[in-house]
Amino acid sequence: MFSIKTLDNKFIPEVTALINNKTKPLGSLGQLEQLALQLALLQSQQKKQVVLKIEINQPTMIVFAGDHHIAKHSISIAPSEVTRQMVLNFLIGGAAINCFCNTNDIAMKVVDCGIITPLSEDEKALNDNFIEQRLGEGIGDISTTSAMNSQQVEQGLTYGKKIADATIEQGCNVLLLGEMGIGNTSSASAILSALSDEPTENFVGKGTGINEEQFLLKKQLVEKSIKRIDQIKAKESPEYLLQELAGFEIVQMVGAILGAAAKGVPTLIDGFIVTSAALVAVKINPVVRDYLIFSHQSNEQAHQKMLNMMEAKPLLNISLRLGEGTGAALALPLLRCAASFYNDMASFESAGVTV
Amino acid sequence: MFSIKTLDNKFIPEVTALINNKTKPLGSLGQLEQLALQLALLQSQQKKQVVLKIEINQPTMIVFAGDHHIAKHSISIAPSEVTRQMVLNFLIGGAAINCFCNTNDIAMKVVDCGIITPLSEDEKALNDNFIEQRLGEGIGDISTTSAMNSQQVEQGLTYGKKIADATIEQGCNVLLLGEMGIGNTSSASAILSALSDEPTENFVGKGTGINEEQFLLKKQLVEKSIKRIDQIKAKESPEYLLQELAGFEIVQMVGAILGAAAKGVPTLIDGFIVTSAALVAVKINPVVRDYLIFSHQSNEQAHQKMLNMMEAKPLLNISLRLGEGTGAALALPLLRCAASFYNDMASFESAGVTV
Repeated sequence: MFSIKTLDNKFIPEVTALINNKTKPLGSLGQLEQLALQLALLQSQQKKQVVLKIEINQPTMIVFAGDHHIAKHSISIAPSEVTRQMVLNFLIGGAAINCFCNTNDIAMKVVDCGIITPLSEDEKALNDNFIEQRLGEGIGDISTTSAMNSQQVEQGLTYGKKIADATIEQGCNVLLLGEMGIGNTSSASAILSALSDEPTENFVGKGTGINEEQFLLKKQLVEKSIKRIDQIKAKESPEYLLQELAGFEIVQMVGAILGAAAKGVPTLIDGFIVTSAALVAVKINPVVRDYLIFSHQSNEQAHQKMLNMMEAKPLLNISLRLGEGTGAALALPLLRCAASFYNDMASFESAGVTV
Repeated sequence: MFSIKTLDNKFIPEVTALINNKTKPLGSLGQLEQLALQLALLQSQQKKQVVLKIEINQPTMIVFAGDHHIAKHSISIAPSEVTRQMVLNFLIGGAAINCFCNTNDIAMKVVDCGIITPLSEDEKALNDNFIEQRLGEGIGDISTTSAMNSQQVEQGLTYGKKIADATIEQGCNVLLLGEMGIGNTSSASAILSALSDEPTENFVGKGTGINEEQFLLKKQLVEKSIKRIDQIKAKESPEYLLQELAGFEIVQMVGAILGAAAKGVPTLIDGFIVTSAALVAVKINPVVRDYLIFSHQSNEQAHQKMLNMMEAKPLLNISLRLGEGTGAALALPLLRCAASFYNDMASFESAGVTV
C-alpha cells in the first residue's frame, strides 16, 4: 500500500557544497542547515537533479479528531464532549491552531476520524475544509478491550492516505499534522510502552494537566491496556499494535504520514500524539523516517523518549502541551527560512567575501 | 538620558485572566503565554488600559557593524576586512539576515558604527537603509588599550537612541537587533567576565568556529583585557565598562535598547553579542529588563551564563552561531503567534466549550 523511496544519498555532496558556500561560517546556522539539507535532498530526489531552490508550496495542516472511551474514567482534564466542541471551535476559527495557521499562512483541514457524536449537516456546513472519515463512535476503552478491529485499521490507513493524496494533489508539498481527542495521550503512552521494554509508568504523563489522583489512575489504566495485549505480537506487527491501542485519529495520521512520503512529501510532526503516529509509521516502513521533520519537544515526559527512538531533534522547545498541531504550525516559518537561505543567500564568490 | 517606566503590575490580573480564558488547557501554550503577557502588559501600559489586541507593527531589524583591532591577532575565523564585506553583503541583500527578514516580513537597516574603512559614496547608495553613525575606525585592541574614550561612549549611546527613536517614529513597535564585527565575541566575553567573579576562561568560546590554537590565544587576550582595567570600577560604572571593553556596535546597541524602552518599545535580543549589550543596558537601568525578549540560545558557551544573569529563557535553541540578528529574525513569527492567540482565540464561553 505504501511504496516509499529511500532517500538517495547521491545528491548529498552537491547540496552540502551549496550550503557550505553560503556567506556564513561553516555550520553556523545549526539545525536550519540540517533542515535545508533534508528538504533539498527530498526535492532533488523528486526532480531527479539537485534543486537550487527549495519550494514550500501550500503547507497544509490536517487536524485529525477522534474519541477515546478510556476517557470515561476521568483521566483527562475534560470530558469526551470537549473533543466535539473543539472540532466545532476549529471550524469557526476560534482555536489556537486556527490563529497560528492564519498567522503563518498555512491552509487547514479538519477530519472527523470517529468522534462520539457526528456533526449535524448544519455544523458540517460551517467550514468547507471539514472532512468526514469516521471509523466509529470513538475507540474502545483500551484498558479492557481492543481499540478497533483489523478492518478499521486498514480503512483508517486508507483514509489517511486518501486525504494526504488529495492535499498533495491540490498543490501542498509540506504536510503538517495535528490532532484532537480527549484521552488520546493514554493511547500514545500505551503505543510507546508496547514498543519499549521499560516500565509503562515511565511513559505516562499528565497530558494537558491532570491532578495526582487522575495521574495515578491513568498509569494503572495504561498498564492494564499493555498487560491485556499480546506484547510480543505488538512489537512485531504494527497493524496489531494499532488495532489494540491506537485512536482513530492516530491510525489515520499513520496513513497520512506514509501516504505523503509515498508521494515524496515530508510531514512536519507535532507533539506527543502525532509523534506516536510517526513512531508506528516508522515501524511499518523505516524508510519514512527521512520524510519526517520534528517541530517541537512537548512537556509530556515520554515525548523525549519517542524522539530519541527516532533520533529526532525537534526545532522548538517552548513548553507546549496543547496538541492540535500547534507546535507544527509554530515551526513552519523555520522551514520557510531554511528554504530562503538555501535559495537566496549569496555565495562567498558572488558576494566578494574573503573565505 | 534614558527615562524608562517600570512595568506597571496593575494590569497583570486582567491580562492573565484573558489568557487563561482562551479555549486551551491552562498554561498549555508554554512560553508563548509568557510572551503574550509581556507584550500585552507593555502595550497596556502605553495605552493606559488593558489592550484586547497586541499589535506587532513594522518590526525592524537594525544591524550594527563595527570593527575590533583585537582581530589583528587572528583569533577569529576571518580578518577584519570581512566586517566591511559583510556590510556590503547586507546592502545587496545576500546575507542570511536579509533572507530571514524578507521571509518573515521584517524591515532592515544597517548601521556603520565604526568599521575600519568607511563605505564609498557609491557603496552607500546601494541601499537606502544604510546609516552612517561612525565612532572611529574600529575600537582599540582591548588586550592592550581602552576600546574608546568617554566621549565616544556618550556619542555611541546617543547614536543608538537616535536610530531607535527614528525607527519607532516610522511606526515600528518591536525592535530587533543584530550585529556584525569580526572580533566582537572577545568584547562580549570581556564584558561578561568583568561583570562576574568567575575565571575569565569560563566566558570565552570559539565564536563562529576557531581552532584550538586560536581559542587558547583568545582566552589569553581576553584575560589580558580584564587584568588591564580597574575591575572594581568596571562593576560599578557601566560607562567605564563600555569605554574599556565594548565595540562601537555594542555601545550603540546599548543606546538603542535603552532608547526603545524609553519609548515603551520592547527589543528582541539576538545572540551572544547583542545579549552583552542587553546586559550592560540592564546595568545602566535595571528597569529595561521588562522590555527585553530573548530570541535564542546560541552555541557560544558563555551565552547561557549571560542569559542566567538576566533570568532569561530564550525562544529558540537550534545551535545558531552566526550573529547578524539571525536568531531574532527567526524568532519574530513566535511574537506574531503570541499576539494572534491573544487577539483572536475564542474564550471558553464564546466557543461553547465546557470548562
